Amino acid sequence: MTASRSRPDTDHYAEIEELGASPLWRYYGAIFDSEPRSRAVPYLWGYQRLRPHMLHFADALSLEEAERRVLMLVNPGMTEPPATVNNLYAGIQIILPGETAQAHRHTANAFRFIIEGEGAYTTVDGERVHMHPGDLLLTPGWHWHDHYHEGDGPMMWLDGLDYPLTNAMEAGFFELYGQRLQKPATPDDLSSRQFIHGRLNPTWVPRNPVNSPIGNYPWTETERALTSISDDATGSLYDGIMLEYTNPHTGGPVMPTMSCRISRLPARFDGRAHQHTSSTIYHVVAGEGRTEVGGTVLQWGPKDVFAIPAWAPHRHVNASTGDATLMSYTDEPAQRALGFYRERPVD
Amino acid sequence: MTASRSRPDTDHYAEIEELGASPLWRYYGAIFDSEPRSRAVPYLWGYQRLRPHMLHFADALSLEEAERRVLMLVNPGMTEPPATVNNLYAGIQIILPGETAQAHRHTANAFRFIIEGEGAYTTVDGERVHMHPGDLLLTPGWHWHDHYHEGDGPMMWLDGLDYPLTNAMEAGFFELYGQRLQKPATPDDLSSRQFIHGRLNPTWVPRNPVNSPIGNYPWTETERALTSISDDATGSLYDGIMLEYTNPHTGGPVMPTMSCRISRLPARFDGRAHQHTSSTIYHVVAGEGRTEVGGTVLQWGPKDVFAIPAWAPHRHVNASTGDATLMSYTDEPAQRALGFYRERPVD
Amino acid sequence: MTASRSRPDTDHYAEIEELGASPLWRYYGAIFDSEPRSRAVPYLWGYQRLRPHMLHFADALSLEEAERRVLMLVNPGMTEPPATVNNLYAGIQIILPGETAQAHRHTANAFRFIIEGEGAYTTVDGERVHMHPGDLLLTPGWHWHDHYHEGDGPMMWLDGLDYPLTNAMEAGFFELYGQRLQKPATPDDLSSRQFIHGRLNPTWVPRNPVNSPIGNYPWTETERALTSISDDATGSLYDGIMLEYTNPHTGGPVMPTMSCRISRLPARFDGRAHQHTSSTIYHVVAGEGRTEVGGTVLQWGPKDVFAIPAWAPHRHVNASTGDATLMSYTDEPAQRALGFYRERPVD
Amino acid sequence: MTASRSRPDTDHYAEIEELGASPLWRYYGAIFDSEPRSRAVPYLWGYQRLRPHMLHFADALSLEEAERRVLMLVNPGMTEPPATVNNLYAGIQIILPGETAQAHRHTANAFRFIIEGEGAYTTVDGERVHMHPGDLLLTPGWHWHDHYHEGDGPMMWLDGLDYPLTNAMEAGFFELYGQRLQKPATPDDLSSRQFIHGRLNPTWVPRNPVNSPIGNYPWTETERALTSISDDATGSLYDGIMLEYTNPHTGGPVMPTMSCRISRLPARFDGRAHQHTSSTIYHVVAGEGRTEVGGTVLQWGPKDVFAIPAWAPHRHVNASTGDATLMSYTDEPAQRALGFYRERPVD
Repeated sequence: MTASRSRPDTDHYAEIEELGASPLWRYYGAIFDSEPRSRAVPYLWGYQRLRPHMLHFADALSLEEAERRVLMLVNPGMTEPPATVNNLYAGIQIILPGETAQAHRHTANAFRFIIEGEGAYTTVDGERVHMHPGDLLLTPGWHWHDHYHEGDGPMMWLDGLDYPLTNAMEAGFFELYGQRLQKPATPDDLSSRQFIHGRLNPTWVPRNPVNSPIGNYPWTETERALTSISDDATGSLYDGIMLEYTNPHTGGPVMPTMSCRISRLPARFDGRAHQHTSSTIYHVVAGEGRTEVGGTVLQWGPKDVFAIPAWAPHRHVNASTGDATLMSYTDEPAQRALGFYRERPVD
Repeated sequence: MTASRSRPDTDHYAEIEELGASPLWRYYGAIFDSEPRSRAVPYLWGYQRLRPHMLHFADALSLEEAERRVLMLVNPGMTEPPATVNNLYAGIQIILPGETAQAHRHTANAFRFIIEGEGAYTTVDGERVHMHPGDLLLTPGWHWHDHYHEGDGPMMWLDGLDYPLTNAMEAGFFELYGQRLQKPATPDDLSSRQFIHGRLNPTWVPRNPVNSPIGNYPWTETERALTSISDDATGSLYDGIMLEYTNPHTGGPVMPTMSCRISRLPARFDGRAHQHTSSTIYHVVAGEGRTEVGGTVLQWGPKDVFAIPAWAPHRHVNASTGDATLMSYTDEPAQRALGFYRERPVD
Repeated sequence: MTASRSRPDTDHYAEIEELGASPLWRYYGAIFDSEPRSRAVPYLWGYQRLRPHMLHFADALSLEEAERRVLMLVNPGMTEPPATVNNLYAGIQIILPGETAQAHRHTANAFRFIIEGEGAYTTVDGERVHMHPGDLLLTPGWHWHDHYHEGDGPMMWLDGLDYPLTNAMEAGFFELYGQRLQKPATPDDLSSRQFIHGRLNPTWVPRNPVNSPIGNYPWTETERALTSISDDATGSLYDGIMLEYTNPHTGGPVMPTMSCRISRLPARFDGRAHQHTSSTIYHVVAGEGRTEVGGTVLQWGPKDVFAIPAWAPHRHVNASTGDATLMSYTDEPAQRALGFYRERPVD
Repeated sequence: MTASRSRPDTDHYAEIEELGASPLWRYYGAIFDSEPRSRAVPYLWGYQRLRPHMLHFADALSLEEAERRVLMLVNPGMTEPPATVNNLYAGIQIILPGETAQAHRHTANAFRFIIEGEGAYTTVDGERVHMHPGDLLLTPGWHWHDHYHEGDGPMMWLDGLDYPLTNAMEAGFFELYGQRLQKPATPDDLSSRQFIHGRLNPTWVPRNPVNSPIGNYPWTETERALTSISDDATGSLYDGIMLEYTNPHTGGPVMPTMSCRISRLPARFDGRAHQHTSSTIYHVVAGEGRTEVGGTVLQWGPKDVFAIPAWAPHRHVNASTGDATLMSYTDEPAQRALGFYRERPVD
């Protein structure tokens, strides 16, 4: 090794640094950890405490100023860049009667889950989709969408997006439509009417393997599903009666990176603990209970939102005498698509 | 070529025949035709004329004698072996109150579409599935199934099977269960209750890519689907508002070889003609109309069954002032799976 | 059941026959058998006995008369329509120096496996593909192909087609090119040169999931594969060192209905018996041995062809002191695509 | 909105911050950009300048101290955490005769591309895989691997990993084997010998859709592929004669997140510019040329490594009179799996 021996005084660490190189042996532990430690922390956002502020900003800030009037639910462990859990984001949006949120599109996949109000609709690629509490509306990546509220009283919903993933993948695009609102190009709510009943697919609609063609998964149907599955159903020891919203053309998740779910925790449900590499965000549709995440206990009630970090051991408990209903979404499809998904029970 | 010249008297045709060989040049036209000519013919089976005979045999023949009490609808062009169209079979089965049809299973995929009666159920791999007019019940290949009728009055349904294909593939197996009836192993109608509403999939049910896990696609849901798609829907120029029953785990056909469909031909529907390599069997749920198949005109009314051969140009017409509703099934999935499916408009 | 009781003299069997209906209970056994019984029989075609007749017809019959000059190897159990085993056909084709076989295409998938001669080529969709003994050449469904022999001496090869399946599916089309020969549209043998080495795929060639884009799987590579797998390889108890020719875009079979394989039975190979719903045709590339099919023993030597019917128990034995090399093809992909494939050991 | 008007003095921004919420309208631009701007910069690592330092550390640092003796090639724009481009990492590893790198496994997918030396092997899940310059060796996620060098002189190779993606997904696991080296469990280099020739798949090896079962894609085969594709091949306007290493069971990339490629830029190749959301790392196998990335010009020669950030417009030029050969890898499979991949020409 004459080359190196010749100049014993050389500071090789400094010199390789200049060449854009670093010694792996000094980073090893940081790079290869025995198991994932999420930057996110278990956290709960209380709806009742946020609501007054939503109303304030609805009052104080016009939708012309704010592209969208949304409170981001930022995980204390993930403020830079802001995210709710790894790969996923949750926000609460409010729109007032007569207001419009202008048309745009982005690579990020999005959905809305309606919390309060009646009479608004979103227009997605030319189809008006009307909103009712409990409805799940999809805005898959790169679909034009704008909102309009023709009802009375404020309208509030949960926004779910995967922009943290989109941006981490350095794959995010954004575009304005040009005009404030799209013109309807198809009959209102057509996609839902065509797909929602009886597992029947219209044969004239081209197959879309990327994302669900359904604009709205209405609460009326979701509720029928939950009630038609009596408690004799097996369900999951971890998640209770958990149903996944599906793409009618694949039977898979509604969007390639996010799975949206609705679950019922029967009265006295005492869930078993497990952990998985996917991160999860929950929204409480109805009922009360708690979720134990590692040492943290999240006590949740109606309309609250809470976050479960990747690989965090967790279990759900419904100690009440009534059912609890939870809407949730997760990056499990992304984890699986990359071959990274792992799950295991925790004793 | 001394070898051959040496014996001018040799009868080569006779000699190769002895060796199990034949001259391709004498078979060429028979083997390679410019386009498919089905052995099947366009044909209609009038329900009202068959019904009295069904009742007669119900009376005259016990289910102990007949493994199943079914009138096969045999295409005049496909009597040996008997089939309704290429690859597919249709029959009309009748079962009386108190009767049981013993448990068996076969490789052939099967479904029933209920025509008349109430109060019977079929047990499929341990799940009791109750029947109502308009319901589509599945018995995928190699699933145990038996029938029991606890209602009043005769119960009649259409049986659809792919046994002609199974047998042509030399892949057919058949087995008796041993006892006459299966014992219920799951709650009644569970699979339907778990899958039928809102495009929601139970997350605890293992994915089944081969065939639909749904025991029954109830008419109540099918009807809601048809009515929720108002006439503003595009539909198909050939088939009107045609919906396909799907496997919730794939979005594809309910079974690997057969696609089951329901279609609405609006009043005054004047369909365009097309042809495809798949064969089709239709059952009229309601309404009246005609289907022109090549030069043949099939005038159909309620509960009739009719057959459209492979590659036969055909068009549907509903000249009446009311909607017509047709249930149909086809071997299109088999054609596609083998790379043989072809379709084109006919002017 | 007054309807039927009222006319005790009615011959219901005759009347339903007139209505196109038949009593299932009289056909049951014929339709639902406990297991498949192939119409095909185990059979061997001795190459040395067929060869002189090939040469005779080459002499006596011009290619203008015979669209193709081929001896069909017809299974004694499947003469009408003629097939070698269920779904599959084998023939031996001969072409003389200077001859051309005119361009046509058909739905049926085809391949050639070269037995004797040098200097001929086939042109497939504009690519000239040259033939050498042991090469596997593909002509997937609906690809134009013609043959030209510019070498010396007769050229003979095995033709493998799935036309029995294509016709049974009533999906067969045939078309003449118009001119006798295609003009080359790409460099000679390009597809093989682009795909054959090192599992590397050209990134500019569009993915073809239906059939392999490779025109020729040359014997030189096949031989290297066989020799590079020393006898330390596990192989199969039933089939020895069996390799499947694959579609580089899927890793699956070269065509949607047929799998083509090459296998080496080491000296003293004493195969275990099994049975499967797929049918198989073998061509002996080199070596000698026997295959026991049920009670039948097929003694085979170089260039012979033999047939194994669906579900027939069979085992291969190489009692000699040298390796035996077998080319084979089967309808297993079709069986699997339809969900019908079944296989089991036989003790 | 009395709720809010009632307390005009409230600092709503401060209060929502306490509740874990932030105003989206103040982050909008940062989150939704018109197009991706990678944190990575175009960069080149000169092999000749790094080599002496590699030799020094080989001399100064034992493999007992360093888990692996590797210089990480860290992109100046991506130092925290360290990565070479988004999602991907490149390092140069050196091992001396007689040295061992102990057995471990990690979720991250890895490969080695051999640069210098002979006589070392890596053991992957019990199979010894020998290394030669130009060979591509795979260590898919969670496969045990250790290295041993029994040759003379230092051995150097390029390490490619997706750990930045694995960690960004919060899905990374790491485990030590327990003993320093694995015991061979299969014949040496078996997987390569079984899969590398003639597109033939061993039928007894279970299908692996996740990652390639091939341990080594030897340079000898890669070179034959490149030479067998003469310059009459179309190739790509952007990338020249670019071939992708494939998984023989899918025809897709060798691992779910990374595609490995080899490309030949013919003499005088003057590539067209394009941009894509995937990031790319290049290693120069032979030849000289330049790559223009936006305004930056990367002049490259033998054994250099260079990085092209996501969505950066870039073109390759080989102004020399000889071919240039480049090995490269990209996160395109991950981009596609998530539905984010986008590509376009740049004029």
